[in-house]
Amino acid sequence: MYQPLLVAEQPSSRPQNLSVPKGFSVASNDPRTAAAMKLLYPNTLKLDPALLSGFPTLTLHSYDAKAPTVPANLLDAEILVTWCNSAANLSFAAQNLSQLKWIQSLAAGPNDVLAAGFDASRIAVTTGSGLHDRTVAEHALGLLLNAARRFYEMRDFQNEGKWPGHLGGPQPDREPGTFRTLRDARVLIWGYGNIAKCLTPYLVGLGATVRGVARGAGVRGGVEVFAEDTLAELLPETDALVMILPGDASTRHALNKERLGLLPKHAWVVNVGRGSSVDEDALFEALEKEEIGGAALDVFEQEPLPEGNKLYGAKNLIMSPHAAGGRPQGSEALVVDNLRRFFAGQELRNIVSKL
Amino acid sequence: MYQPLLVAEQPSSRPQNLSVPKGFSVASNDPRTAAAMKLLYPNTLKLDPALLSGFPTLTLHSYDAKAPTVPANLLDAEILVTWCNSAANLSFAAQNLSQLKWIQSLAAGPNDVLAAGFDASRIAVTTGSGLHDRTVAEHALGLLLNAARRFYEMRDFQNEGKWPGHLGGPQPDREPGTFRTLRDARVLIWGYGNIAKCLTPYLVGLGATVRGVARGAGVRGGVEVFAEDTLAELLPETDALVMILPGDASTRHALNKERLGLLPKHAWVVNVGRGSSVDEDALFEALEKEEIGGAALDVFEQEPLPEGNKLYGAKNLIMSPHAAGGRPQGSEALVVDNLRRFFAGQELRNIVSKL
Repeated sequence: MYQPLLVAEQPSSRPQNLSVPKGFSVASNDPRTAAAMKLLYPNTLKLDPALLSGFPTLTLHSYDAKAPTVPANLLDAEILVTWCNSAANLSFAAQNLSQLKWIQSLAAGPNDVLAAGFDASRIAVTTGSGLHDRTVAEHALGLLLNAARRFYEMRDFQNEGKWPGHLGGPQPDREPGTFRTLRDARVLIWGYGNIAKCLTPYLVGLGATVRGVARGAGVRGGVEVFAEDTLAELLPETDALVMILPGDASTRHALNKERLGLLPKHAWVVNVGRGSSVDEDALFEALEKEEIGGAALDVFEQEPLPEGNKLYGAKNLIMSPHAAGGRPQGSEALVVDNLRRFFAGQELRNIVSKL
Repeated sequence: MYQPLLVAEQPSSRPQNLSVPKGFSVASNDPRTAAAMKLLYPNTLKLDPALLSGFPTLTLHSYDAKAPTVPANLLDAEILVTWCNSAANLSFAAQNLSQLKWIQSLAAGPNDVLAAGFDASRIAVTTGSGLHDRTVAEHALGLLLNAARRFYEMRDFQNEGKWPGHLGGPQPDREPGTFRTLRDARVLIWGYGNIAKCLTPYLVGLGATVRGVARGAGVRGGVEVFAEDTLAELLPETDALVMILPGDASTRHALNKERLGLLPKHAWVVNVGRGSSVDEDALFEALEKEEIGGAALDVFEQEPLPEGNKLYGAKNLIMSPHAAGGRPQGSEALVVDNLRRFFAGQELRNIVSKL
């Protein structure tokens, strides 16, 4: 817990002006907190201000997150909540919100905020990590079932007005060398974080066995999580590889030609993390040569995927237009939790640490 | 428990010939059971005879379920296991397996066996009810997610080489009047039997609320099940209607124009039961007029659905070629359980009762 530091840095028109360093806040029993603070919340999603109410020193103000400017009466805001703000809006805010102490993004990652020019040494930045777990996990599950149950093939036949009888009727049950059901499927989740922890029970409930790969090995919630140096042993024993990696330099082309080659010929790849994790050329080649069973991608190195890109027509490729998330759930509760911490002088949740 | 009746009806070349009425069997401590009985198991699926072994009076024989005849040396079999037998094969068996006491079908329903001409008053008929629960429930879940997540629409765009951006990116979260996620979705399962009981935990795990409709009302496994006379109240409060009804005269066109009209405009229908449950003309009209959100059908009044049928091109229609089941799981365990009961003189499981 941090001790509250009360340092007046810039005078303003309000009786008290407390500039509080990143990560710190003003103790609630301090008489100098009686002055209202302003929180700006974006119009880009349905946020219910009633669910943010109850902090006596806080006033709530809706703002247009797509506008290239922020209204003059809001420029002294201390707290900014962001969601799909335009780059111009974030850039303007970075230049002009001089009292800003804390930015609460509702996105899973802070990239757009950090790229806008805010002074991260002075302003606390917290993310919406956790708000997208269930939507992304549900989408990943849906893609796995689409692949196993061959809905994408059925759609192609339907569109030709033909009955794909070979995809129905009596079928072999869980033949080795096939991925046709999650029952007894060996699923490897690469990027074993909160979304993975949300997805795992859905898979286990359907009968899959789940293992994970992450930076640090260990057992998380009953799932064996391995470090990346074990991939050469894990990939050959995988029926479905679910990738949920963040998009940064360290994960670029994590799934490359070599690792694709380690997957069994029937195995599917599902990517709901970031497109840069997959070497798309290597993937296309693996699909064309039928060296893997297929790939279901929600993310791509370039989005939108340009018309004419070879992936559109790749064999056994299920394409989803970055649709897994995009709707944070439980945003008010996270903001309120962080507001409480902010006013109590406690560490904020999902804070972006200095590296 | 039934008392064993030992009545010799027909002489045969074997020392003991015990014709046992339907539902009864021979007590295992009776010295007259020392003679071997024959069980015939079909070649239409992988059955492991090792998993049927252990009954000293029983010999196991594979047979070709697609052949129009049964070999002469097997005609005295007492027990016949069936799976996707040809009609000719079943008909031949009905005419020629004179010692038959029990038929164990691995299909969920007995229709093919009963239609073949076996004497149901003399021969016990048991089904494979329960062996298809998980495959059908998983398929139903997959169809629900295909519908909610709009994978079928995405496939259409992908096939045109176009990025369906409107189906991805930032989206409203659980807007009233939409079915975009199972979280907080109101699912009504019509035909609340064993498959429904298998499906419910998958749905609840994803955050749906589930209610059922069946012949008898009550609470089953924590789910409120209502009788059909409540449909007029239930349908308007339904986001997804999952139909798992058997195909008989009493369920024909259960989902008719009137009931389709009671569903909200965004609601989806998923049918994994039998095609006759749905009035396809009324459904097509409801889809064309966008009076429901869509329909995902694994079963049709006619299968294969003939080329040129209007359902192929219907709006928001996901077509699956009777693919939900077709692979019984745990067949050996059911057969073994029933063999034990058969030899112990106990009632067989999944017995087709005389109505």
